[in-house]
Amino acid sequence: MAPTTSDTLPLSAPTQPLVPDLTIDNITEKVVQASSQSGDARLNYLMERLVTHVHDFARETRLSTSEWMAAIQFLTQTGQMCSPVRQEFILLSDVLGLSMLIDSIDHPKPPNCTQGSVLGPFHTSDAPHLPIGSSMTTDTAGEPLLALCTVCDSSGRPLSGVKVDIWEADSSGHYDVQYASRQAPSERCVMTSDVDGGFWFRAIRPVGYPVPDDGPVGRLLGLLKRHSCRPAHMHFMFEKQGLDPLITTLFIRGDEYETSDVVFGVKTSLVVDLDRVDEDTAAKYGVPQGTLLLRHKFVLASAQETEELRDRNAMEAMRRMGLKTKLVDHLPVPDLD
Amino acid sequence: MAPTTSDTLPLSAPTQPLVPDLTIDNITEKVVQASSQSGDARLNYLMERLVTHVHDFARETRLSTSEWMAAIQFLTQTGQMCSPVRQEFILLSDVLGLSMLIDSIDHPKPPNCTQGSVLGPFHTSDAPHLPIGSSMTTDTAGEPLLALCTVCDSSGRPLSGVKVDIWEADSSGHYDVQYASRQAPSERCVMTSDVDGGFWFRAIRPVGYPVPDDGPVGRLLGLLKRHSCRPAHMHFMFEKQGLDPLITTLFIRGDEYETSDVVFGVKTSLVVDLDRVDEDTAAKYGVPQGTLLLRHKFVLASAQETEELRDRNAMEAMRRMGLKTKLVDHLPVPDLD
Repeated sequence: MAPTTSDTLPLSAPTQPLVPDLTIDNITEKVVQASSQSGDARLNYLMERLVTHVHDFARETRLSTSEWMAAIQFLTQTGQMCSPVRQEFILLSDVLGLSMLIDSIDHPKPPNCTQGSVLGPFHTSDAPHLPIGSSMTTDTAGEPLLALCTVCDSSGRPLSGVKVDIWEADSSGHYDVQYASRQAPSERCVMTSDVDGGFWFRAIRPVGYPVPDDGPVGRLLGLLKRHSCRPAHMHFMFEKQGLDPLITTLFIRGDEYETSDVVFGVKTSLVVDLDRVDEDTAAKYGVPQGTLLLRHKFVLASAQETEELRDRNAMEAMRRMGLKTKLVDHLPVPDLD
Repeated sequence: MAPTTSDTLPLSAPTQPLVPDLTIDNITEKVVQASSQSGDARLNYLMERLVTHVHDFARETRLSTSEWMAAIQFLTQTGQMCSPVRQEFILLSDVLGLSMLIDSIDHPKPPNCTQGSVLGPFHTSDAPHLPIGSSMTTDTAGEPLLALCTVCDSSGRPLSGVKVDIWEADSSGHYDVQYASRQAPSERCVMTSDVDGGFWFRAIRPVGYPVPDDGPVGRLLGLLKRHSCRPAHMHFMFEKQGLDPLITTLFIRGDEYETSDVVFGVKTSLVVDLDRVDEDTAAKYGVPQGTLLLRHKFVLASAQETEELRDRNAMEAMRRMGLKTKLVDHLPVPDLD
């Protein structure tokens, strides 16, 4: 390039006027505008609400740079704690009550149906499919328990052929995936309900336990002086074509953490009593008399019942919040008409 | 345990009445209450606002389970993309405008002081400390540039002994840390201003570049149909006891992305013109006549000036938002008196 003799002559003139400088008060509008070009009305709406809430959070707290950096590090560590057998972000969502909130929004239950609860971070996809009547436990230290369950629809008709995922902690309060030495699934199985909607299995008495507290979420609970305990429970997940999938949990009544579950998963209707197996039942199911007995009837909503209820709830909620939206694919987007 | 002959007798009576079931409408209050026991008023306030905004986001969007799971996976991948030389969460914060917003909140500038901009994900702590007049470039393909800078306080008094961190991309638009083969820092250095507040160095003409788009944040930008480009720029960070640290960027006027920086970092006052070195300057600084010349005067606020302005802005903003707060350690907490 040819040198010039002036060091004051600009090499390039402004090509266009700059927009007004971004400030605390106008930056949100600019970011929302830049993020609303996708042509996907739902994505645009999600981004608009996300950016607005994240920015409002910073404005309302006057978030400091050092607090922001602590949050960046927390999120980074949370991501890096995740592995094929551990999901720390789901745990974070759980302890913030977000998982329960989203389940309530996305899987509302008609009044007579079994309520949902958190999936939690310990479900796996490698549980063995066992025949009805099998034992899903290898834990000889646990107190044996017989579970006699049925599953029906909201009209009380038995549902056969439902895939039922069942998982619980061992007698020390740990899931199999929490052991580095894990060779195979334990304290978990998949069953298929029989022609009468029945399924039964042998397991152990559920115990309460703390959620994993050796990661970022545990440190957060420590900072908040929150305990990390869940009351004794057993997880269930139900799936069948035409049914709304049900993810739920049964809680054993009387646990000291029944009213302060760290993941907010307890609902009154999910708290159950245990009984003891009587002589006839013992003979019928081949377990010792006096064995702990869990009886439960699960009532599942159809996909259509849930969808109609979800749509109705959504429109009612948006109306109450004063948000002018319409449903597209059963999810709200701004109604610009 | 002695067996019983009844399978209907509960083993344990309810120890306490259950609180009302958590619903979409009351769960936020319960989570906030559980998270407000730390005794740290600031932490409690941050959690109350965080939980409220996260829950409101889910309620206002009727967030679905599959959208929530996509978010969980996005956050997990973002954490797992982070390494000692890459910070994907900072990049996420940048493209959402959050980084700029927080800098504006935490480091407000008196009117005559140099404005701030994003730190970005490419600052490192291993830049060599070079004597004034050094070259910080090893990029022979870049167009040589001489930078003649000064730093003074808000009254115009030269500031000596200021630590200045300087970093830029190479002529291909990549930072040194983006090369797997990186052996040593390049296109970055630390200098200390001289007794007249001066510092000068040789570098290359800044070029624009896309932020890394091979990770989750790049995929998000793609979904949003947002470009990933930053206009040509050079980063500066200033630190000295008694001064508010200044993190800023100079942008070279005329870049096509000047008004649409993907991280919202451009401010009018940070857009500068480049000149050419004249004969006298060439002789004085030992560079060829016609070399690109960047002259800039940085004006730094004192820590006290910034603190007073931040406090005043905070109280005014909280008043405008109708939030009844007081400042403790210069950060808002609810004023319960």
